[in-house]
Amino acid sequence: MADNNLIYGHHPVVEAIQSGQAVEKVFFQQGVRGETEKEIRLLTREHGIPLQVVPKEKLNKMVRGAHQGVVAFLALIEFQSLEDVVLQALEQGQNPLLVLLDSITDVRNFGAICRSAECAGALAVVVPQSGSAPANEEAMKASAGALARMRICRVRSLFSSVEWLQQSGIQVVATALSDRAVPLYKADLSGPVAILMGSEGDGVHPKLQKMSDAVVKIPQATDFDSYNVSVAAGIVLYEALRQRAID
Amino acid sequence: MADNNLIYGHHPVVEAIQSGQAVEKVFFQQGVRGETEKEIRLLTREHGIPLQVVPKEKLNKMVRGAHQGVVAFLALIEFQSLEDVVLQALEQGQNPLLVLLDSITDVRNFGAICRSAECAGALAVVVPQSGSAPANEEAMKASAGALARMRICRVRSLFSSVEWLQQSGIQVVATALSDRAVPLYKADLSGPVAILMGSEGDGVHPKLQKMSDAVVKIPQATDFDSYNVSVAAGIVLYEALRQRAID
Repeated sequence: MADNNLIYGHHPVVEAIQSGQAVEKVFFQQGVRGETEKEIRLLTREHGIPLQVVPKEKLNKMVRGAHQGVVAFLALIEFQSLEDVVLQALEQGQNPLLVLLDSITDVRNFGAICRSAECAGALAVVVPQSGSAPANEEAMKASAGALARMRICRVRSLFSSVEWLQQSGIQVVATALSDRAVPLYKADLSGPVAILMGSEGDGVHPKLQKMSDAVVKIPQATDFDSYNVSVAAGIVLYEALRQRAID
Repeated sequence: MADNNLIYGHHPVVEAIQSGQAVEKVFFQQGVRGETEKEIRLLTREHGIPLQVVPKEKLNKMVRGAHQGVVAFLALIEFQSLEDVVLQALEQGQNPLLVLLDSITDVRNFGAICRSAECAGALAVVVPQSGSAPANEEAMKASAGALARMRICRVRSLFSSVEWLQQSGIQVVATALSDRAVPLYKADLSGPVAILMGSEGDGVHPKLQKMSDAVVKIPQATDFDSYNVSVAAGIVLYEALRQRAID
């Protein structure tokens, strides 16, 4: 059964996933066991779709019909494969600029970053499948429609993606306020580069910072807090364009 | 009478304005004439406080008590005098960096810009008294508290302020997508400078653009829409810090 951007019931959800529909997230009823549980767990894992176990009451609130313990939210957008997108760009001789988002859960910030990424001609915005903002209507609005144009790659783990990007010749540059950080304008962003932004609360995961080729900080003249993460992303993208002499 | 950040009734409002309380805006009842109208009109004009004439029903919704046709909203912050702030900075040998906002009515953008201005060590954010976002709780939240630290100067007219700043040796640089615009990184922002940002809908007023010493555009690699105005302001502030070698 389908209801706007919702699909529910064992078979409809399984079919949606298997037919390659862009599923944002699957909600699964606490305590449901057997074939349904096994199949849904396997499929969501295979397709990199977040799965959340919730009480029956929550599912009852989401849909009016018989959900059989499983409800899927369709994404507004089709997610792309990071590998496909990057390899194609490299084959075409492009100089890729990517944005990696670590734990950006705020929908408006996610949307605003997609907008800047689209303006700056970034190749893709990369988000991990768990702990990211949903690509929903609010994100679309905050992105001024850019979410529908920008390639969004949802990956299982940022750790493996960072490693893979580096092996593919793409430098990973994290933004952080660590001792190791150099002022943004002293880092070389002119070649193939993926910029890694963290949430305002926690910043980029320490292990991801450690893996990165460089850590940069955005200049501040005061010790006040820090720039909003979507402003910070815009600044780093600008610096990359400046170094590439794009006007 | 007072009610949280509201003051109402002829005498309480007159007293609040005369005693120098920071009044955000005065609402005045349609059709009320005589001494009350004369005095409120004169005082608000003298003190540069926006006055809006509204139907009685609107005032009745704002306050429970007898408002006598006049309701004043107190500002969360004290506005500063642009002249005082700038002259003091110049006397102290500072290299001022100001942000002028033309018709930025979105409260979140206003707050976000104040946050970036505070991080970048800007001297002040300058807003015209009419057609600007209110300095309210939502702006404070969007600014992460920066609104309480940043100097906010509310001026009668941006036209006269631009002229005055130029006469005081401060270059005014407008951001716009006009033919005259040069890429941001080709403009000289290293000396005393006021950057002028316009609303996302209309941009900087053509006459203000014409008056400006330079017009800059933020580099874009695609023709998609444009950067969000708070992201754009952050980028221009960053470029100024970069040119000043602040890290």
